[in-house]
Amino acid sequence: MTEFELNYENLKKSFDGILDSFCAGLDCKPEILNDSLIYSLRLGGKRIRPVLMFAVGKLLGLDSQKLKNFALALELIHTYSLIHDDLPEMDNDDFRRGKPSNHKVYGTGNAVLAGDGLLNTAYSVLFGECFNGSEYVSAAKYICDCAGIKGMIAGQSADLLHQNDSEIDEDVLDFIYENKTSKLIMAAVVVPSILCGGKYYSELKLFGRDLGFLFQITDDILDVEGNFENLGKSVGKDSAEGKYTSVRLYGLDKSNVKADLLCERCVKILESFNGNTEFLKDLVNFVRQRIN
Amino acid sequence: MTEFELNYENLKKSFDGILDSFCAGLDCKPEILNDSLIYSLRLGGKRIRPVLMFAVGKLLGLDSQKLKNFALALELIHTYSLIHDDLPEMDNDDFRRGKPSNHKVYGTGNAVLAGDGLLNTAYSVLFGECFNGSEYVSAAKYICDCAGIKGMIAGQSADLLHQNDSEIDEDVLDFIYENKTSKLIMAAVVVPSILCGGKYYSELKLFGRDLGFLFQITDDILDVEGNFENLGKSVGKDSAEGKYTSVRLYGLDKSNVKADLLCERCVKILESFNGNTEFLKDLVNFVRQRIN
Repeated sequence: MTEFELNYENLKKSFDGILDSFCAGLDCKPEILNDSLIYSLRLGGKRIRPVLMFAVGKLLGLDSQKLKNFALALELIHTYSLIHDDLPEMDNDDFRRGKPSNHKVYGTGNAVLAGDGLLNTAYSVLFGECFNGSEYVSAAKYICDCAGIKGMIAGQSADLLHQNDSEIDEDVLDFIYENKTSKLIMAAVVVPSILCGGKYYSELKLFGRDLGFLFQITDDILDVEGNFENLGKSVGKDSAEGKYTSVRLYGLDKSNVKADLLCERCVKILESFNGNTEFLKDLVNFVRQRIN
Repeated sequence: MTEFELNYENLKKSFDGILDSFCAGLDCKPEILNDSLIYSLRLGGKRIRPVLMFAVGKLLGLDSQKLKNFALALELIHTYSLIHDDLPEMDNDDFRRGKPSNHKVYGTGNAVLAGDGLLNTAYSVLFGECFNGSEYVSAAKYICDCAGIKGMIAGQSADLLHQNDSEIDEDVLDFIYENKTSKLIMAAVVVPSILCGGKYYSELKLFGRDLGFLFQITDDILDVEGNFENLGKSVGKDSAEGKYTSVRLYGLDKSNVKADLLCERCVKILESFNGNTEFLKDLVNFVRQRIN
């Protein structure tokens, strides 16, 4: 294990501990609701948003305890979006992280409610934080707006709207990437800044945006070059269905060039910060080179 | 028009003004997302939760300006729940308030997103209120918890789980009614109390619970005795599908007796308050005697 992998694993483990406590204390009825929430939360994944949030918090000298519930809420929102995205009326994905999607296990009606439940619970957690002062309210509202109708949901809506377009428009692709993917990653890196009185606010916003684009382009590349074993989800589906992907617009080579460029831009922003940004730089490269 | 009807109409109109401004300023992209949100918000309805909230606020001497965004958020949440409830995988209702359901107009994928969008926007509005102080945070969190996995969503989940049961259990029926219907009505009447330092908190909670049960039982009665023209939705569907309804458990006569009893209990709670409760008493009777 490299030092980066070790550090990543440690941040991930500490978040998984937070998530485990949350799941253990959930205790809602009926049981199928409780089970379906926990099922999707425990499907695993890279937990990249919480890891990013903790890493940026560390860079800014923020006590990680202050970020716990923000990281939790963000992962709840991300998980809800996957459940609803996988529904037959949306992306219609039967697999998620190598296991059956929520609606394949619990049925579509319960999956709709599981998604609603995770989204609502994220905000219940964040309202709890709002008692701590106005910078906490600002951070909570930032997450909410990134997830909302001028954020992630707008991106999902555009994705759905254009999924059968015969030609791809670059502006539309950018709109989908910025909103569907970048916004929650921006939330992950901007929340610590808000809790630190806005330190590196604009830089981190830009960093999150570029990293989100990088994440999505590598996703598109993996959809063509990856395999089910590593990805845990269907491969080649996006391009086969004629969805909006960078590979479809630019081709594989140019998509790789674009990804390299975004990677450089992310690293450049990090270099403008004081403090140790090695981990975050490695994280950018990890997003670029990941196989799942 | 009776005095009650006039007062109701005035409160409803003032809320519709709030909702109109909200819709006019929505401006999200893509257009289909904007349209689908506004379509369901403008389907009309009695706006009983906002009216209740304003009426209780008036009784407690609260400035109605303070309640504007809470009433708005509550109606957004109520509307999202109707959109998701009407989905084919849930209640599968093609009509709502005499017009095609959201998914019949925009498709199921967009209806899922419209619901998600309204829920998320409700909380964005409420986070905005949280800057005003801790009682505002408490009120916002109260709404969120009433709507959540130990509130309305739990009720919807139980409703879905038991919809094909051959026999009805009274405890399950109570659980569904309390959570699916009463919780948002409780939120409507408890929020003004929280903003007034908890005045009549327990009494209003109980009042909201009973009024919610009354609302749901009269709904069940209307499902049997009403007609499509007045209701604007399919009639006899709940009982035909063997859903959990009071009429199916108790029969029509006993359901009417129960409704009368709840009506009396609500009025009794109101009589324990100082101030003019005439409007709220008439509102209770309106819920009992409504034809839609």
